[in-house]
Amino acid sequence: MNVLVMGAGQLARMMALAGAPLNLHVTAYDVNSAKVQHPVTGEIYPLTLEQAVAAADVVTSEFEHIPYPVQAVCEASGKFKPNSTAIKAGGDRRQEKALLDAAGVANAGYRIVQTETEFMLAINELGLPLVLKSALAGYDGKGQWRLKHLEDAALIWADIAAFMAGADHSLPQAIVAEQFVRFDREVSLVGARNEHGDTVVYPLTENHHVNGVLSVSLALPSEAALQQQAKQMFDAVARQLQYVGVLALEFFQVGDQLLVNEIAPRVHNSGHWTQQGADTCQFENHLRAVCGLPLGSTALVRPTVMVNILGEDAVNPAILSLPSCHLHWYGKTKRAGRKMGHINICGATAKELSERFSTLSALLPESSFPEVAEMATKLRERAK
Amino acid sequence: MNVLVMGAGQLARMMALAGAPLNLHVTAYDVNSAKVQHPVTGEIYPLTLEQAVAAADVVTSEFEHIPYPVQAVCEASGKFKPNSTAIKAGGDRRQEKALLDAAGVANAGYRIVQTETEFMLAINELGLPLVLKSALAGYDGKGQWRLKHLEDAALIWADIAAFMAGADHSLPQAIVAEQFVRFDREVSLVGARNEHGDTVVYPLTENHHVNGVLSVSLALPSEAALQQQAKQMFDAVARQLQYVGVLALEFFQVGDQLLVNEIAPRVHNSGHWTQQGADTCQFENHLRAVCGLPLGSTALVRPTVMVNILGEDAVNPAILSLPSCHLHWYGKTKRAGRKMGHINICGATAKELSERFSTLSALLPESSFPEVAEMATKLRERAK
Repeated sequence: MNVLVMGAGQLARMMALAGAPLNLHVTAYDVNSAKVQHPVTGEIYPLTLEQAVAAADVVTSEFEHIPYPVQAVCEASGKFKPNSTAIKAGGDRRQEKALLDAAGVANAGYRIVQTETEFMLAINELGLPLVLKSALAGYDGKGQWRLKHLEDAALIWADIAAFMAGADHSLPQAIVAEQFVRFDREVSLVGARNEHGDTVVYPLTENHHVNGVLSVSLALPSEAALQQQAKQMFDAVARQLQYVGVLALEFFQVGDQLLVNEIAPRVHNSGHWTQQGADTCQFENHLRAVCGLPLGSTALVRPTVMVNILGEDAVNPAILSLPSCHLHWYGKTKRAGRKMGHINICGATAKELSERFSTLSALLPESSFPEVAEMATKLRERAK
Repeated sequence: MNVLVMGAGQLARMMALAGAPLNLHVTAYDVNSAKVQHPVTGEIYPLTLEQAVAAADVVTSEFEHIPYPVQAVCEASGKFKPNSTAIKAGGDRRQEKALLDAAGVANAGYRIVQTETEFMLAINELGLPLVLKSALAGYDGKGQWRLKHLEDAALIWADIAAFMAGADHSLPQAIVAEQFVRFDREVSLVGARNEHGDTVVYPLTENHHVNGVLSVSLALPSEAALQQQAKQMFDAVARQLQYVGVLALEFFQVGDQLLVNEIAPRVHNSGHWTQQGADTCQFENHLRAVCGLPLGSTALVRPTVMVNILGEDAVNPAILSLPSCHLHWYGKTKRAGRKMGHINICGATAKELSERFSTLSALLPESSFPEVAEMATKLRERAK
């Protein structure tokens, strides 16, 4: 079976690696270069988008910021999974918020803002602090502002207005003004839904961001009530979208309540731990879902920590000597802050994992892995 | 790092898949077509053997029947790991037997036979039954005879003589006449040795052959004394060869004693279970060894059964619904008896594994998977 992925980054790469054992041939369309290529070897196939879509049995996506005309070609083929409504909801916070409301899942109060007047109205209605997020193409901490004090409103609006004016979008830009949630922690749920509406979800994953970018994900056996709450929200959103494939929901946890922060209509960085820690990894399950194969077990095999490697193309090779420590490079050229790879480390128990994570963190320099040693220390405290 | 593999079959393919996350780029040299290609995508690289060897950082092998002139090119580069002495010992039973004797590891008594007179002498000295194996290019049950009764000697010798005369080898053919071992079971040990002489080994694997071809491998926590005995023999053979890479030893177990049946200087079919059941799979560990990276943990994560798929290019997709059941296709064209893929299935305990294996075996037709249901039944009995 031939699977064409929109986007030729690390997610397409890991899909290709997971698909090969199932005889699923994954190729990728790079939306920037408009080239069809192999996401592992880089081999270029002399095909247009239309030809590649025609040659594929299934068309899917590794990211939500696919130009609408490209999505239209995919959708017209009848092979696009998940559908473009889902992709667009992931790529536009306005549509995402409308989706969450339609699905009836809890999320932070918000207003859509395009003018200074609307901005001031949002402040009045929602109160402070406010989080302001560009509706389009903002992720990993870009295109986001936080307003704590009313006296900063004019300054922040000026910045937002400049951002909106400068944004090079074929679509109208806007800002989603959202009530700031004083969360206890950030968690995510990665799961898969097939064409028959069956769903499977992995255990809730605890996520730690540094400067707005995911740094560490932690997968432990999850608390049943919280897992059930997340699963219900996952099912509601996935059903609303008639979703097929892997979908990720990111939550704010406040006490024992979850609020959806955002969705990702794709395999997700917070699901990379599944490569070593789960029965079937998210990449394989995505392919199984979109190719009409049975969904695989999402059971936690071993508690696992995932650590992102940002802006570095080498790490201390000694980490490979650690038991249950696995490196995943993406084969990308080094650039400051760029997601270059990740490390998965597992333990038979949370305690063993916390000890191994401590040993690992001591081999990762603070300069490139800020706060990781601190997270390891905290996990050891919790696992005692 | 660029790794060139001699041989472009499923073992090179699985090395490529295991190497990509470590940024190890695996290409393969098909000794039949003399083409350099990607063992997953099939992309052809316009390189001669010499150019490919020059471009590689490391040259390794997926099989032992590499023509000697090709081995000479690899060896001359100074990058060939394991070395050609090891490869040749795996490809010639005369050298293999001499190696086992030199390493001081137990193996069945034998004589090298090239003439009818030597054949009769071997019968006299070793007694009956005898197993007769062609020294070169015989594996998976081909080029083997069994002599039980003296009155069949002339008939069998005629067959052997015809085989030797017909064999198209650039090397002198011969027969290894070996005492028949009344073994209790067949087990194998897969392990890795690095350039510093460090070794790691996986748990002993129990192997079941049907018509001389591996059908099922079973990896459970192994009995300590037996594991130690196997490890000592592994270390002796690997040291004798100054081996670098993954090496497999196949044993006959007689009571609590192991006799080496044969060695394979490469990743091995009886190690495929490590993809799901071990901390680091054999393909990754082979690459780590030959590339000078730290060896990975060989700990058993979960008891695992591996079932070979022979001569079939499809199986009941329902097997993917079973928990911890993973399919590995090799992307090959269907041919009777050909190794087309394998299935790995795991359980948290031997008991759970035996139940899952039973469920799996019920989905595998007896015609294509002879004796598999029977093995599953036996495992359930043992795991009670």
